[in-house]
Amino acid sequence: MTAKAAVASKTKSYEIPATMKAWVLGDPGQLSMVEKPVPQPGLAEVLVRIDAIAVCGTDVEIIWKGLPAIIQGGPPFNKNFTPGHEYMGTVVKLGPNVDEFSVGDRVTVEIHAGCGRCERCREGMYTSCLNYGKNYGNVNKGHRANGFTTDGGFTQYAVNNINTLVHVPDDMSDEEATLIVTAGTAMYGLDVMGGLIAGQSVVVMGPGPIGLMGVAVAKALGASEVILIGTRDNRLEMGRKLGADYTVNVNQEDAVEMVQKYTNGGAQYVLECSGALTAVNDAARMLKRGGRICLAAFPDKEVSVDVGALVRNNIYLFGIRGEGKSATHRAASLMAQKRFDAKLIHTHTFALEQVPEAVRYARERIDDAIKVVVKMS
Amino acid sequence: MTAKAAVASKTKSYEIPATMKAWVLGDPGQLSMVEKPVPQPGLAEVLVRIDAIAVCGTDVEIIWKGLPAIIQGGPPFNKNFTPGHEYMGTVVKLGPNVDEFSVGDRVTVEIHAGCGRCERCREGMYTSCLNYGKNYGNVNKGHRANGFTTDGGFTQYAVNNINTLVHVPDDMSDEEATLIVTAGTAMYGLDVMGGLIAGQSVVVMGPGPIGLMGVAVAKALGASEVILIGTRDNRLEMGRKLGADYTVNVNQEDAVEMVQKYTNGGAQYVLECSGALTAVNDAARMLKRGGRICLAAFPDKEVSVDVGALVRNNIYLFGIRGEGKSATHRAASLMAQKRFDAKLIHTHTFALEQVPEAVRYARERIDDAIKVVVKMS
Amino acid sequence: MTAKAAVASKTKSYEIPATMKAWVLGDPGQLSMVEKPVPQPGLAEVLVRIDAIAVCGTDVEIIWKGLPAIIQGGPPFNKNFTPGHEYMGTVVKLGPNVDEFSVGDRVTVEIHAGCGRCERCREGMYTSCLNYGKNYGNVNKGHRANGFTTDGGFTQYAVNNINTLVHVPDDMSDEEATLIVTAGTAMYGLDVMGGLIAGQSVVVMGPGPIGLMGVAVAKALGASEVILIGTRDNRLEMGRKLGADYTVNVNQEDAVEMVQKYTNGGAQYVLECSGALTAVNDAARMLKRGGRICLAAFPDKEVSVDVGALVRNNIYLFGIRGEGKSATHRAASLMAQKRFDAKLIHTHTFALEQVPEAVRYARERIDDAIKVVVKMS
Amino acid sequence: MTAKAAVASKTKSYEIPATMKAWVLGDPGQLSMVEKPVPQPGLAEVLVRIDAIAVCGTDVEIIWKGLPAIIQGGPPFNKNFTPGHEYMGTVVKLGPNVDEFSVGDRVTVEIHAGCGRCERCREGMYTSCLNYGKNYGNVNKGHRANGFTTDGGFTQYAVNNINTLVHVPDDMSDEEATLIVTAGTAMYGLDVMGGLIAGQSVVVMGPGPIGLMGVAVAKALGASEVILIGTRDNRLEMGRKLGADYTVNVNQEDAVEMVQKYTNGGAQYVLECSGALTAVNDAARMLKRGGRICLAAFPDKEVSVDVGALVRNNIYLFGIRGEGKSATHRAASLMAQKRFDAKLIHTHTFALEQVPEAVRYARERIDDAIKVVVKMS
Repeated sequence: MTAKAAVASKTKSYEIPATMKAWVLGDPGQLSMVEKPVPQPGLAEVLVRIDAIAVCGTDVEIIWKGLPAIIQGGPPFNKNFTPGHEYMGTVVKLGPNVDEFSVGDRVTVEIHAGCGRCERCREGMYTSCLNYGKNYGNVNKGHRANGFTTDGGFTQYAVNNINTLVHVPDDMSDEEATLIVTAGTAMYGLDVMGGLIAGQSVVVMGPGPIGLMGVAVAKALGASEVILIGTRDNRLEMGRKLGADYTVNVNQEDAVEMVQKYTNGGAQYVLECSGALTAVNDAARMLKRGGRICLAAFPDKEVSVDVGALVRNNIYLFGIRGEGKSATHRAASLMAQKRFDAKLIHTHTFALEQVPEAVRYARERIDDAIKVVVKMS
Repeated sequence: MTAKAAVASKTKSYEIPATMKAWVLGDPGQLSMVEKPVPQPGLAEVLVRIDAIAVCGTDVEIIWKGLPAIIQGGPPFNKNFTPGHEYMGTVVKLGPNVDEFSVGDRVTVEIHAGCGRCERCREGMYTSCLNYGKNYGNVNKGHRANGFTTDGGFTQYAVNNINTLVHVPDDMSDEEATLIVTAGTAMYGLDVMGGLIAGQSVVVMGPGPIGLMGVAVAKALGASEVILIGTRDNRLEMGRKLGADYTVNVNQEDAVEMVQKYTNGGAQYVLECSGALTAVNDAARMLKRGGRICLAAFPDKEVSVDVGALVRNNIYLFGIRGEGKSATHRAASLMAQKRFDAKLIHTHTFALEQVPEAVRYARERIDDAIKVVVKMS
Repeated sequence: MTAKAAVASKTKSYEIPATMKAWVLGDPGQLSMVEKPVPQPGLAEVLVRIDAIAVCGTDVEIIWKGLPAIIQGGPPFNKNFTPGHEYMGTVVKLGPNVDEFSVGDRVTVEIHAGCGRCERCREGMYTSCLNYGKNYGNVNKGHRANGFTTDGGFTQYAVNNINTLVHVPDDMSDEEATLIVTAGTAMYGLDVMGGLIAGQSVVVMGPGPIGLMGVAVAKALGASEVILIGTRDNRLEMGRKLGADYTVNVNQEDAVEMVQKYTNGGAQYVLECSGALTAVNDAARMLKRGGRICLAAFPDKEVSVDVGALVRNNIYLFGIRGEGKSATHRAASLMAQKRFDAKLIHTHTFALEQVPEAVRYARERIDDAIKVVVKMS
Repeated sequence: MTAKAAVASKTKSYEIPATMKAWVLGDPGQLSMVEKPVPQPGLAEVLVRIDAIAVCGTDVEIIWKGLPAIIQGGPPFNKNFTPGHEYMGTVVKLGPNVDEFSVGDRVTVEIHAGCGRCERCREGMYTSCLNYGKNYGNVNKGHRANGFTTDGGFTQYAVNNINTLVHVPDDMSDEEATLIVTAGTAMYGLDVMGGLIAGQSVVVMGPGPIGLMGVAVAKALGASEVILIGTRDNRLEMGRKLGADYTVNVNQEDAVEMVQKYTNGGAQYVLECSGALTAVNDAARMLKRGGRICLAAFPDKEVSVDVGALVRNNIYLFGIRGEGKSATHRAASLMAQKRFDAKLIHTHTFALEQVPEAVRYARERIDDAIKVVVKMS
């Protein structure tokens, strides 16, 4: 940005209405549109006008089942809550002392702003904030998880802690920018397993959005072999477009056997994004000794695990939540540099008024929906 | 050591017989004493006269069930094999070009000498050597695991790669020196979980030898609370003597509840040494978010695991084999400095001729045997 | 603390006056006592009644030379500023939403509370906060460095961000508690160099307060050899009391030569606390290949450095500022466990009214003052 | 490779002569061609027929000044020594028990094979082997540094430890393959500084071969801004072709100022490849607080360094030697994937008979030579 443009951008201003349209939770599976006050940004916060938002599988969970059990001591399931966390937009108002962003900046958001005062936040692990969910009433510790514990993005405006914001380059579309946080989660999964991806063999289990972005990021970072495991050929085909060197349809081939073959004796990393019941055991068998597994998904019940295989083979297993350690910034940079085409996973677009329809497409995978984006007019 | 003493030590020499007494595997559960040739040290090797050896639970496994399945492509179960790996002794002969040790040095041994040529060894993870077990015939890659894949210590002499040797100070008894490798395993478990133990809360599950040494090492490194979990009061009492701040007998109290109480909301590390069926799930529930588990033991079958709990709570889980990254040296240093009294876990002593009896005591926990040591006359 | 005591402590309350006595900067080298309003704790803050404060060499710098140049864009040298950062005291008032501490808790403080919003704070490196010094006026980013950029402790009360507080056990004296932050700095120096101190050789250059605490912490963590280098025999003698295995008086012996001898070929770590002109070069020559240096002190001008020696010997060199990554908590835990006797370095005590005299003792090392503590009545 | 091809490759065999042409050191600056016996591969070794070799600046040093002082206790400067380390070729004979490579494999080499028995090798830092140079006579510890301490590649055949070999893909030319080790050194420099390069700002000082490869690797790994600093416009232009976003000619602009501008306040990493007298100070000033410097080059004398700037700004400085931690494999993988065009830095080609001429071109930068390659016929 030239100095002149910078000055110009500071003169931008936006009309901010007093109220806004917002979708809120109703009975399980229901969403209602209401009129809510536009919130005001506080310290270290900005107000974002939402320009687009993607539907995540977790949104579906929240709409049907309520906020996740993880939020211990969190707010009661309330029918005034606005879900949605994969949004991007335009900064339209700054809180006090904010100069990291300017009015008019295009931004996308990551989910978590840690409390900044617990042991985890102090060591930089803000996605594991020990005050998760404590952002209301008399136990407000300043933690925020957009669309999880504080109002999210199926609306027109949202307040965001500046720690959740990532700049969006001018030549990236609104729709593509909503995909950054998904790529950031995949990036974080690769980071926590070790970070030295170049020249390594990486297996991605589950060609959902995170898995597909995992393929793209691993390849962009120089993985020598990326192997995508799934059950649907069209998804695997999309994985090949995003950089997978090999794909395995588990309905037709034995995944462990094929990985052993393609990697000549075992992979170094498995990024598990399927939540399959056998995923941990399969992952352990795909690895060479000393390999590593990152769990970015999980089954909804206990499963049988060969713990001995983890010990005998010196396997490290990393559970992660979301997109920590500023991985979203790293993913955004790769996307800004056009290292992979995240837009491939964007399959459907709806308007704000159509959020329930958008959610239905995502939930029922209608027309093989992968990423359904709601685009504000 | 003064220069004069160093010169003197070089003049030491030992009569080395042509053959030696050695216990070898027989039918499952049987050991026979035979006469074997004394082996000769090669490059980077020395010959150790064994002065004492402790019995490990894995020795019992090998004697009853054969060499572990981990040794894929390893040697057939053979009846000329000498088990035993927790031994110490005196260097009596040097291989070519060895000057790291002198004849007359007292040494204890760790198990693994990696091949030095695989991906794992090249990154320093020699306990996960990809050529594990390849130390014989035409696939000899130089890997050695004393008492697992190469002849062990229930005998009078053993050849050792210098990488497996640790100096023993003059004022440490032979019996105590056999315990160094056990303390080294516990040390490694703490290392891989992060290494910053001072001021942290550490749970140790299972008051076997490794668990008890885990208590001692964690406390020596400055853990603020060490909580030992077990089923037998006398073992827990021993744990208290070794530094445990709290103990929980799971037959009388709920371990998860007590850990949550003692740690005011969850521990940072769990060192799992019990192999209990519920260990992983219990460990996950004992931790605060972002906590870490090291598995140094495992059940002998698949178990039900709440994988979702690992993901939601951002838990990292590290499977380890033995005592990597030179942890044995660190443990030996703490013991040389008398930071804890490892001798407490040494309960019984036998002679070389009594190895089957020693093994029986260890296997059947006769007279509450913890560490049974065979002391050469 | 029993539940009953906890309840009782919540009933504690303190009379807080409207104003307090405070020493403030005057002309270079001068301090004046004034009456200031007692500050009020805000979000994530508490008010601490100061019970004791130690004098640090940096305080002397600030009093004579003004606030350090590091605070770019910081406040102008102002004569209403109260220096002093090594203080401890009692929590007498809580800011909104604080429940991490209770009124009546005894606490000691570390210096830095990061802004929580810059790249460094987000990765847990709060002592390197990119908004260092921005805690006032219209660029307030929330960073605080007690006694450096915000009012310090040569007074009766101070507001502290809860991130700077560490609990003090009941059986530790006020005077000893003022030394925790010094030990925390030494601990951090050892942390950043690798953290695996047990069994390693550690050289500490400079037997000032940080160096002496470095000796104590290194030994508490199990270093096999700790070698202290200095110029005054009485300081070296104190180092031996704190755990140094060897000391070298550079006026009498060649430090590099002696370290090479004591470590049998080179140390693993050098903690440089002397600021000597030749310190970097000497440290490099004391190390074995691949060794590491932490700089906790520095000369006040450029010095000649053999950069090639760093490269050829694969040396890593870590500059640190203060006591990051919660190292103060680790140091406090070791001291609470009485792993070393920090009180040894406390040599003189004065009253609040005598602060200029206390500073003079520290500055001129009168009566070989090491740590001079101001104890409130 | 298909199974059929694999079988076929095993049938390859090569006529290996008894002697070979080899360039050897003479008086300073002189090389003579002699006839030497073709060496025989031992344990963990293969014989490589050299197909191409690049000239490195260090070769020039060795030819003019003898083997570097770093090789303490190393061999005397001897006139039968063959220098040269950036070579590639074809495996023509296997040592005992080698199956990691097959006869006929195309390979390139990295320099160091550690002893495998010192503290550094045991932790994976084989380029800092404590037995560096001990590979001959009665102190043979097995360390090898091709072309530094053992005969190198300005000849027809060379024995190599398998740890120094990297497979070369079929579609990569011999000339390009000689550049892998240079790219590996740059890769290692980025690795040791942290590894998370995506989205970060990287300064490369010095557009020699390592610096230019540093630009390419940093960009391939996703650096957001890569800034190349140098003195010659044509080199900087080449840097731009390899991915530099910005270049600074220090004869025309102030490098510190430009970096501060391009990075909006300071870079995260500086890879120093210039050896300039002011490099450390300049690098420190280019970084934001908490930034990191890797020194891959150094001046030939002591220089004035502002040590205080390193401390106040929490800067970490990493001296490296060569291409450790298997970085060469990672670089080779990026090059095999055609992530950057290393061939750009290959400027001149000579025949084996012309080695002195090739060295002269490299030394005198005749015709702006960057990488001069000797290609066997």
